[in-house]
Order: sequence, then C-alpha cells, then structure tokens
Amino acid sequence: MDKYVSIHLDPSSAKPLYLQICDGVADLIEKGKLPYGEKLPSIRQMASFFNVNAVTVVNAYKQLEAQGYVEARVGSGTYVSFAANVKDFDEFTTADDAAPLPREARSVLESAALPRRFDFAGASISPEYFPVKDFKDVVNEVLDRDGGYALEYQESSGYHPLRESIADYMKTQHDLLVPFEEVQIVSGAQQGIDILAKAFLNYGDVVYVEAPTYPGAVNAFRSRGAHIVEIEMEGDGIDLEDLEKKLAKNKPKLLYTMPVFQNPTGNSYSMKKKQELIALAERHGFYIIEDDHISDLYYRQKPTMLKAIDDADRVFYIKSFSKLFLPGLRLAFLWVPKAYSDKIALAKYSSDISSSGLFQRALDLFLRKGLWPKHLRRLRKVFYEKWQKTHDALAEQMPGELKYNRPEGGHFFWLQLPRGFYSMNLYQVAMKKGVFIMPGNLFYMSQRPSEGFRLSFAQISARDIDEGIQKLSESIKLFLQNNYTIIQGPNDRPLL
Amino acid sequence: MDKYVSIHLDPSSAKPLYLQICDGVADLIEKGKLPYGEKLPSIRQMASFFNVNAVTVVNAYKQLEAQGYVEARVGSGTYVSFAANVKDFDEFTTADDAAPLPREARSVLESAALPRRFDFAGASISPEYFPVKDFKDVVNEVLDRDGGYALEYQESSGYHPLRESIADYMKTQHDLLVPFEEVQIVSGAQQGIDILAKAFLNYGDVVYVEAPTYPGAVNAFRSRGAHIVEIEMEGDGIDLEDLEKKLAKNKPKLLYTMPVFQNPTGNSYSMKKKQELIALAERHGFYIIEDDHISDLYYRQKPTMLKAIDDADRVFYIKSFSKLFLPGLRLAFLWVPKAYSDKIALAKYSSDISSSGLFQRALDLFLRKGLWPKHLRRLRKVFYEKWQKTHDALAEQMPGELKYNRPEGGHFFWLQLPRGFYSMNLYQVAMKKGVFIMPGNLFYMSQRPSEGFRLSFAQISARDIDEGIQKLSESIKLFLQNNYTIIQGPNDRPLL
Repeated sequence: MDKYVSIHLDPSSAKPLYLQICDGVADLIEKGKLPYGEKLPSIRQMASFFNVNAVTVVNAYKQLEAQGYVEARVGSGTYVSFAANVKDFDEFTTADDAAPLPREARSVLESAALPRRFDFAGASISPEYFPVKDFKDVVNEVLDRDGGYALEYQESSGYHPLRESIADYMKTQHDLLVPFEEVQIVSGAQQGIDILAKAFLNYGDVVYVEAPTYPGAVNAFRSRGAHIVEIEMEGDGIDLEDLEKKLAKNKPKLLYTMPVFQNPTGNSYSMKKKQELIALAERHGFYIIEDDHISDLYYRQKPTMLKAIDDADRVFYIKSFSKLFLPGLRLAFLWVPKAYSDKIALAKYSSDISSSGLFQRALDLFLRKGLWPKHLRRLRKVFYEKWQKTHDALAEQMPGELKYNRPEGGHFFWLQLPRGFYSMNLYQVAMKKGVFIMPGNLFYMSQRPSEGFRLSFAQISARDIDEGIQKLSESIKLFLQNNYTIIQGPNDRPLL
Repeated sequence: MDKYVSIHLDPSSAKPLYLQICDGVADLIEKGKLPYGEKLPSIRQMASFFNVNAVTVVNAYKQLEAQGYVEARVGSGTYVSFAANVKDFDEFTTADDAAPLPREARSVLESAALPRRFDFAGASISPEYFPVKDFKDVVNEVLDRDGGYALEYQESSGYHPLRESIADYMKTQHDLLVPFEEVQIVSGAQQGIDILAKAFLNYGDVVYVEAPTYPGAVNAFRSRGAHIVEIEMEGDGIDLEDLEKKLAKNKPKLLYTMPVFQNPTGNSYSMKKKQELIALAERHGFYIIEDDHISDLYYRQKPTMLKAIDDADRVFYIKSFSKLFLPGLRLAFLWVPKAYSDKIALAKYSSDISSSGLFQRALDLFLRKGLWPKHLRRLRKVFYEKWQKTHDALAEQMPGELKYNRPEGGHFFWLQLPRGFYSMNLYQVAMKKGVFIMPGNLFYMSQRPSEGFRLSFAQISARDIDEGIQKLSESIKLFLQNNYTIIQGPNDRPLL
C-alpha cells in the first residue's frame, strides 16, 4: 500500500471523499507510479487504509473506470488500464475499441503520455512556485542565530520583531499605518476568522456573509452557535439594498467580506460600495471582518482595502501570508483596533497558545530581507500570464449563452450558465472530459443549486489552459444541448 | 528601545503584566544587557512600547526597585542600580548602606555577579535542553527531500506518515495499539483541548474539571459557553465521593483530567481511581479528556495512562510533543475513537485548516530516526537530578508546618501551608527574596485563596535549587512567624 501514502484525504473538503481518492489514484497513474497492468488494492484494503466506508472506495473505483484509468476484471480485481497512459482515450476507444495494440505501439504511446486532467477546481498555488530555497536559507539563519530560543513558546500576540516588520511592510507596500501593537499573529487566515468568532460571538448572535462565499468562514461562525444570514453579491460587491432590507429586521454583530478578488467570484467592491458598507456598519453598530486573502496578486492597479478607508474603526482586517507564500507555514495576521487587542490575544491563547516561533522568525527575516516583494513580483508575472491565457481562451471558445466576469487579480473567474442550467450537473459532464470545476452550490450556505461556478487557474499549468478551456467549452455545449437536468432549483441573480 | 524587544508579554498568562515586565527587565540586567547606571526608558515610552497602561509600567518599576534592581532618582528617571549586579544585595545594604564602593571593588563584585532570582514558577523547559541540532538536520533533510511539497497545505487530520509513525511509537514505547486512522494531529495540546470543546460542546453543556487544574483548559471550555464544575483533587487523584455527589445533580458531557503528574499538583491517579473513573464515565455517559502533558518524564516506572485501560471507549487522549520537545513546533495529537474522527477533523479544519506540514514531516523523521527516545533519555537524566535535588532540599530545609508531596515524574511539587495561611501572601514575601512560586489560587476557577502552591523546577538550573529552596524556606518561616494575612479565605482540603 506504500504507493498510496501520498494520497491525502481531507474529510472537510467540499470535494467528496470518493473523488479525492479517485483523483489521488489518477494522479499516481499519470505520474507513472502505477504502471499499466498493475492491480489496485482490494476494496477492503483501500477502505481500511483510508479509513473510509467500502462504498466510498467502490465509487472511487467506478469513477476511475468511467474516466478510463482502470478496468475491472470480473472475479479478479481492478487494474490500471492501458488507456490510462494515453493522451486522448476517446480517440482510441472509438477508433479501435477491442483490438489490443502491439507492444511497440504501447510503449510509444506510453512515453508520449501527457497529463489529461484539467484542474480548474483547486485554489492553492502549486508548490513549484514556492520560494523553497530562500525559505530554507532563512530558517537556517534563524536557527543559527537564535538556537533554542527560536523554538520556545512565543508570546500569544506574536513575535515582537515580526509584528514590527509587518507594520513596516504595510506602510511601505500598502501605504497603511498599522500600529505594531494592533498586529496579532495567527496560524493562517482560517484561524484568524475562528479567533474573531471566538472573541466576539456569543451563542445566537447574527453574522452576515456574502452569497456566495468561502464556506470555511461560515463553518467557523456556525461552530460558535451563530445565526448566519446571506446577503446577495453583485458584480461590484454586496447588494446594498438586500443588506439594508435585512438590517431592518435582524442586526448582525459581524459581517464577513472579501472585498477584493472575492472567493469564489473574483469580484471586487467598487469604491462607492466600500464607503457605503462602512457607513452602514457605523450606523447599525456592527463590525466587518475583511479577509484579504489575495489582494497582493493584482494585475492592473493595487487595490484599495476596506481597512484603508475605515475611519470609523469598524473593520477587523485579516491578511494571509500562507496563501501566496507557503501554505505549510500557517501564518497570517489580524489587524484589530487597540481596544480589542487583549480580547483577541486571550482568544488566541485559548486556541493554541501561540503560533510557531520559528516560522514567525523566518517570516520576519524574509520580510526584512525584502524577499517577500521579490517573491510577489515573480508570482504576479506567472499568474498574469495564466490570467491572460484563461481570459483569451474564454473569449474565443465559450458559447454565447455563457456569461463570465473579468476580475483584475487573484486566480478565480466566475462563470454563469443560462437560467435553469445548474453547475452541479455541468460538473458531472465536464468531469467525464477530465475537466474539474467548482460548482456554485458549494459556496452557498444552503448548498442550493446554482447556475454559477468557479474557474480557478491556481493549479493548472499555463500550457494546459487553452486545451482545458476548450474541453470545458465542449462540455458546456453538450450540457446545454442535452439539457441534463438532474436536479432543479431556483435561479441565481446575475453576479457579473 | 531595542534591548527591550526580547521581553515577551503574554496578556493571557496568569502572571500579571507588571510582573512580566519586571521579570523581563530584571533578566536583561542579570544578563548584563542593561549595565549599572543605565537609564531605563520613561514610563510613557515603555507603556507605548509594550502597549500597556502607564500604571502597569509604574508598578513594574516599583517592583524592580523593591527588588533592588533599579533606583529612582527624583526628577531624573529610573536607573539600573549598582546592587543589581551583586549577588547578595541584602548583605551589602545592611553592611554599608550609603558609602559608595571604590571602582575596583565594584568591578570585582560585578564580574562575580550570579543570577540571584530563583524561578520556581515557570513551567516550560529551558531552551538549553532542546535538541536544536538534530532538529535542524531533520528540517533540512525534509526540505531537500520534499521541496515545495513540504510547504503545501497538509490534510486536516495530519500528515499520513506522521500518523503512522506516532502509532508505531505508541506501540513500541507505550505498548498501546493506536489505529493510525484515530490519530488526529493538532497544533499543540491547547488546540487539542479547544478542538474537542468545539466538536463536543454546545452552549450551556456541563464540563467537570479537577480543582486545582490547568487554567488554559478551563478557558477553552468557557469560551464555548460551557458551565464548569470543579471536582476536588486528592493525593491519589480525583475525589470520587465529590464526583458522585455532583453526578447525581448535574451530568457533564466531558470531564477534563491530567491523571499522570497533574498540573499543578504533580499528583497521579491510583490504578483504582483510574478504573472507577472510567466505570463512572460509562455509567453516566460522559467522556473523559485525558491530557497527557508530561508522562514521558517519569523517574520511577513508566506510568499507565487512563487510555490504556479504556475498554469502554470513553477517553479522548491528548499527547503533546511540544512540551518536552520544542514548544515552538506546536505539535500534539489526539487519539479519538474512530466514530468521532470526521467530527474532529472538521473542527480542526475550521480552526486552522491543518497544522504545519513542514513540522509534521520533521517530527515524522525525528521519530523514525529514533531521535525522540534518545532526547527523552537525556531529558529524563537531567530532570531526575533536578527532582532529586529539589526533594532533598525540601526534606532538609522546610519547616515542619509545611506539607508537600513526592511526585514520581514531571517537574512539579505541590506544597501546602498550614490552615489560614494563603500562598498568594507567601508569594509576595518570597518574591522579595527573589524566589518565584505559583500561588494555588491561579489554578482554581474562582481564583479563591489557597494554602497550596506549585513549585516547578523546569526553569531553574540544578546548581541554584538548593539556594532557592533555602530562600523559600526562610520566606515561609518569616511568613508563618509574622502571619502576614493580606487576604482571608476558606481552607483547602489536603491534596497530599
């Protein structure tokens, strides 16, 4: 079973476990780690290895079979299929379905094998872009400099010099004056959200979120017993009319927003909406959590954060370093008005005492050496190219019935099918062509069917974008023509 | 202000902020970083630097003055005093209070300066015992081996190979069969407690804790809106009579315990109490959180964990690696029956998505290379010596009125003053002699006055123990003779 150790299941992911196993195995096959003819472990072995239900494994194997990666041989087991290592499986099966190819042809085809999966679902940046060497140097420098002190408990609010270098960075790069005492280090943005929920929410408090939004935030609020209210999103930010209507009925304690390159839509708030949102927060006495997950990845002009215009001190700002730097570091910071520093530090303490001192010191050095802007410049260049390619491919290939937006940063696009065509059905169709998207229902609290879906170019390589979009376009045309309506639901409002 | 950067304030610590500042400055003076005659920053500068109230700094400076570290010069400011660098301040001031010593005498005395503070309060192991070199090698090996993959998001339940190597370690070292699927990696024991609280507690649920107990756990339960009930401790574990009486009235969902070398008492449960506790959990349908914070640091025989005799699956086991390994790593694991794995992984996900992948890989390699048992053997040797010294010094020097226990592991002793003599008063007396203890009230939910106090030998060096205990003994005698009763309260039951 050793080969399967590299497959990492995340039971909390929006992606079902059977698909995670399916993708994991497909990946091993594509990397040549499971060669043609290799027998897969039995259902029971796999179920016990991954600690899942046998049904989950059965479904994973079925999916692999549907995608042509494996074949089931009755009474014998499941084997990696020959077609798995061939670029375009469809062409072969239609051309000559039954006749086995001669060995020589096989090896030619096998050596020419290329990835045939197009991942527009994943939202994390692939490891090839991580500044591993710079990071390693910095870690070693810290260990040589501080010895055991780098590995002691750190104070709950964070390593003092890091709080200073973050304040410095925010000033020079973002022109924002952050008093270092208002900087609270946390173990990633998710913990930042969880800590704000812990510090400010009581059981039964109301929290407003955008619809659609990032489900991890909703989970954190829910876990505190909060009552969640969704406010509809529009192309230029939250729907203020909907917001005011709901404010008249049910006042929130917190409103959670990603005003720049939102997850999942990629949309940003207009300046007018930012100002009005802050004015409403002041008038109705609620606080805003601004999750700045990716504003550094802009392609046009540097975006203005909500916090930058927050004269009324209504905004709790979260900025992640993990997302664009090294997710494994688990580092982000909160910027919270001084009056709440103690409350936040206490919530942090009861969560995990402190974030890793070593990583805090490493990030501090990374910032002080100017390596962070250097890394961002590089990332921005790579992602700008991918963004341009995605945009061009969409413009060229998408059928007219499909609408999509044009975010000016981040790595998400939001696409919208015509009324009554739900993206969770399209998901099934596209998957058969090896194309993976994130259907919109996953970003609504009710998981209601949605015509929209998220297209992320974080994981896919630049050279695969064009072909991936082409296959997606084919899937959409097929889907619209055949009107595969597996489930029915209400209509989204236009988000674009 | 650069020199003061190394002072780390923890607003959530049981130790008041003014004492933290006082101790931090004292430490700088003792290390020679603030030499004789140096002027301390103004109250305002310090207050703004540490983001605290001016009153806090005033109190810190007063304390420093009381301890002889600094002297206030009217209209000029506060200066590091000459006496600060002299071993026994009392002898000098009584011998020749006013006359300044000649310069030569000063430098002789200054060069002979030794630490004159005896820290029996701190509970973390000093960095000199951390295996920094082995850790550095392992981190570099992981980065060379896995590159960017070591820095990706890790699955919420933990890095698969680490979960296996932990299962393996528990089997070979503790003779416990932990199915690896039941191992959930968390960012330190505090997060383990917080995640269990998140997964299992609803607003208003009842949680039983030992009295006295670790306040960090109580905070995590309280932050979930739980109702906390204290169960009295005895020398051989929880008071079963008190427990049954309370069970008749108010059933808990969880009971939190440290059955081996408890914090703060150092006491361990007898086998009989362990068995009865599990039987009660089964009968009354509650679960037990077993916080194994330090069982590896035993000096007689390997202790038996509650989980080892948990045939009824009532125990959620937490084991910290940070505590004895490298606190800055923030790594621990939960062992929770399979039926709850998903629930726990979800709570982990909404807390911080996953623990650092790099540290998980480093700990995995550390375990696989057999470096953990090697490190423990070394620690056990060092701490056994300190334990023996502390015990011998207590036996020789403590007045008969003082009772204390004899834990067989960890680094805590629990001492108890006669009835009506409260340790928070003794704390004030001992501090004047440079001796720091943790008064018992900090470990009770109500913070009620307590005759008991915790003596930790985690921070103090072996060579200072004898002198420290002697000064403590003098403080106690002084305290008992003069009967400094600043506050009054009820009496503790004997915990020994």
